[in-house]
Amino acid sequence: MKKNYIMTPGPVPISNEVLMEHGRPLMHHRSPEFSKVFTEVTDKLKKFMQTSGDVIVLTSSGTGAMEAAVTNAFCLGDKVLVVNTGNFGERFKKLANVFGLKVMSLDYEWGEAANPEDIKKLLDENPDIKGVMIQQSETSTGIINDIEAVSKIMKNHSALFIVDAISGIGASDLKVDSWGLDIVCGGSQKAISAPSGAAFISVSQKAWKQIEKSNIPKFYFDLIAAKKYVDKNPPQTPWTPGISIIVAMNKALDMFFEEGREAVYERHKVNALAVQKACEKLGLECLVKNPASRGVSVTSLKVPEGIDGKVLTKAMRAKYGVTIAGGQGKLTGLIFRIGHLGYVGIFDVLIAITALEFALKEQGWKFELGAGVVEAQKTFWENNYMSPKV
Amino acid sequence: MKKNYIMTPGPVPISNEVLMEHGRPLMHHRSPEFSKVFTEVTDKLKKFMQTSGDVIVLTSSGTGAMEAAVTNAFCLGDKVLVVNTGNFGERFKKLANVFGLKVMSLDYEWGEAANPEDIKKLLDENPDIKGVMIQQSETSTGIINDIEAVSKIMKNHSALFIVDAISGIGASDLKVDSWGLDIVCGGSQKAISAPSGAAFISVSQKAWKQIEKSNIPKFYFDLIAAKKYVDKNPPQTPWTPGISIIVAMNKALDMFFEEGREAVYERHKVNALAVQKACEKLGLECLVKNPASRGVSVTSLKVPEGIDGKVLTKAMRAKYGVTIAGGQGKLTGLIFRIGHLGYVGIFDVLIAITALEFALKEQGWKFELGAGVVEAQKTFWENNYMSPKV
Repeated sequence: MKKNYIMTPGPVPISNEVLMEHGRPLMHHRSPEFSKVFTEVTDKLKKFMQTSGDVIVLTSSGTGAMEAAVTNAFCLGDKVLVVNTGNFGERFKKLANVFGLKVMSLDYEWGEAANPEDIKKLLDENPDIKGVMIQQSETSTGIINDIEAVSKIMKNHSALFIVDAISGIGASDLKVDSWGLDIVCGGSQKAISAPSGAAFISVSQKAWKQIEKSNIPKFYFDLIAAKKYVDKNPPQTPWTPGISIIVAMNKALDMFFEEGREAVYERHKVNALAVQKACEKLGLECLVKNPASRGVSVTSLKVPEGIDGKVLTKAMRAKYGVTIAGGQGKLTGLIFRIGHLGYVGIFDVLIAITALEFALKEQGWKFELGAGVVEAQKTFWENNYMSPKV
Repeated sequence: MKKNYIMTPGPVPISNEVLMEHGRPLMHHRSPEFSKVFTEVTDKLKKFMQTSGDVIVLTSSGTGAMEAAVTNAFCLGDKVLVVNTGNFGERFKKLANVFGLKVMSLDYEWGEAANPEDIKKLLDENPDIKGVMIQQSETSTGIINDIEAVSKIMKNHSALFIVDAISGIGASDLKVDSWGLDIVCGGSQKAISAPSGAAFISVSQKAWKQIEKSNIPKFYFDLIAAKKYVDKNPPQTPWTPGISIIVAMNKALDMFFEEGREAVYERHKVNALAVQKACEKLGLECLVKNPASRGVSVTSLKVPEGIDGKVLTKAMRAKYGVTIAGGQGKLTGLIFRIGHLGYVGIFDVLIAITALEFALKEQGWKFELGAGVVEAQKTFWENNYMSPKV
């Protein structure tokens, strides 16, 4: 017998309730039954994203939503600022370069969060910047950027504010409207905890104005075409969508609101803290030195000297059924990442730490067996999380 | 109680076997478990498409695969010939125009198939044509184009041969390698009978050579990037794929091969014939006049005078649970379409015809109740399809 546990920053564990919806026979995408679901999902996504603006659902991975942001929001040759804190910052740079934008890049060490003052300085010096792109949660390192602080700076500039919140939104706060975020990208397989295969993107009124002028060629990810279908009665998608994924998202979003936004954020915060404290207790070092820069979706840990990271993640998966993630891009082999995003509870964290302890012990790492698990347990206990309302 | 039956040209009915695979908890897309499935799916798709060349899986609708064909295969300003027999021919034209190609269009009346001689003439007159794009099955009308005949013409020309076989492949024969098809697009929710959300695309060696020279910007649908991941050991996708869709496709492809290619084609042929004969018996007229041009995936029927097509399809769906499709593009309101694609057996056809009879009768259409059903039954009987091997 082998039970499997997925502890990566996406795909994340999926509840049985959502899996059952996802496994239902398919409706036709032009049927009233699906239109009802699609209307509900669109409305729930607006509430999820805290916006009264438009939210468009795309049948693609999150990268498709990032491409939609870049190809719709700009004209060829527009100058944009990419705030680059890791692998997905690099992806925004590549996208902007491929589609003919003039890219100014603000690069940070991987593991550092962006300093809003640096962004302010560049914006002040370059009033011709048409858009700023940034990750809320940089999945490759685990940092969280202070989007609220950056949003205050953006208010004094005309540039569009584009946020890749794919692994961030729903895990910690992101107020699309009140922070003035023009375009925000999300994915089905992250905090929402539905299967992979759908992305979504919010568009502000200010963004639509710039989108209308865009001359970058696009078709599948054409947001104006998508909006025409969303505005139909009943709302639709221009192309056949991932029907079963959207049906699953509908249920998953219900579960988000039933648990309650603040409770979900608190759960993520405590899970992340428990993982980080447990790992530090085991003598591991977080990639993100500054605790204030640590996000709540994923924790990156340095592979310590004497430990083979590949063997470690393989042992966790093959022997104990716990799938965690390795490093991406230039951190490949140097870190491993434990996801605590989405449908993850106390005991999932304890399972991951237990498996990690076994896998570390196998390679001769010195620590007292159970020390990490106890530290995690204490963290849950001290944060009064075990039974807040019982 | 209301049972639901989906009789559209996509999404199509899905077997319980496939739904159960699709509903399984998700694997991580970088795990060995998923790599195994992805390797299997890729190999099975090659066999399904009758090619030893590359097949790339995309997380998108079929339109995404069409966009991938256009943006990867050409350079800006390349002259292409779009053979346009309906709404999806129009889509190829739009795509080619949006992405900066010089489009020559060979337009047919909707309901007519392309004449290979017309294509030959245009190719002979325009040796600078870099690619020919055509639908195998034009889903909006139900015609089938004679791809084999066109392929013989293409062999004397350097242009790439690009076939949208989204609703055609797997329902009737399409030999990618032996017919010399350079790029062929397919979708998960058509003959394969898996859920919607994934597309696939075959690429010949000749196509790769032209793709390497392409200067049209692309990122999400970059086939060279995808090939780099497919060629990894184990093979992967560059972005998070629709994991549950691919898992479902793996099972659905098994069922295709278990039934056997020829048996599947024969089933589609007889199902289509039964629908067409039954409808003609009821006094309805097929949009596609020439029986040789009628495909096996979907039958388009003209809305006869005195009948409200919208009321007809609504009655079939709302009263009897049978979802069929209306017309698309300029045929909206003028035709309705009965799908008989994918996981569709004798009794599904009889159900659709029965519901159609009821819905026609309600609007006062004159015919003997049961006449269509009996005609369909006779068609199955005469084609020795009821129990070919028992």
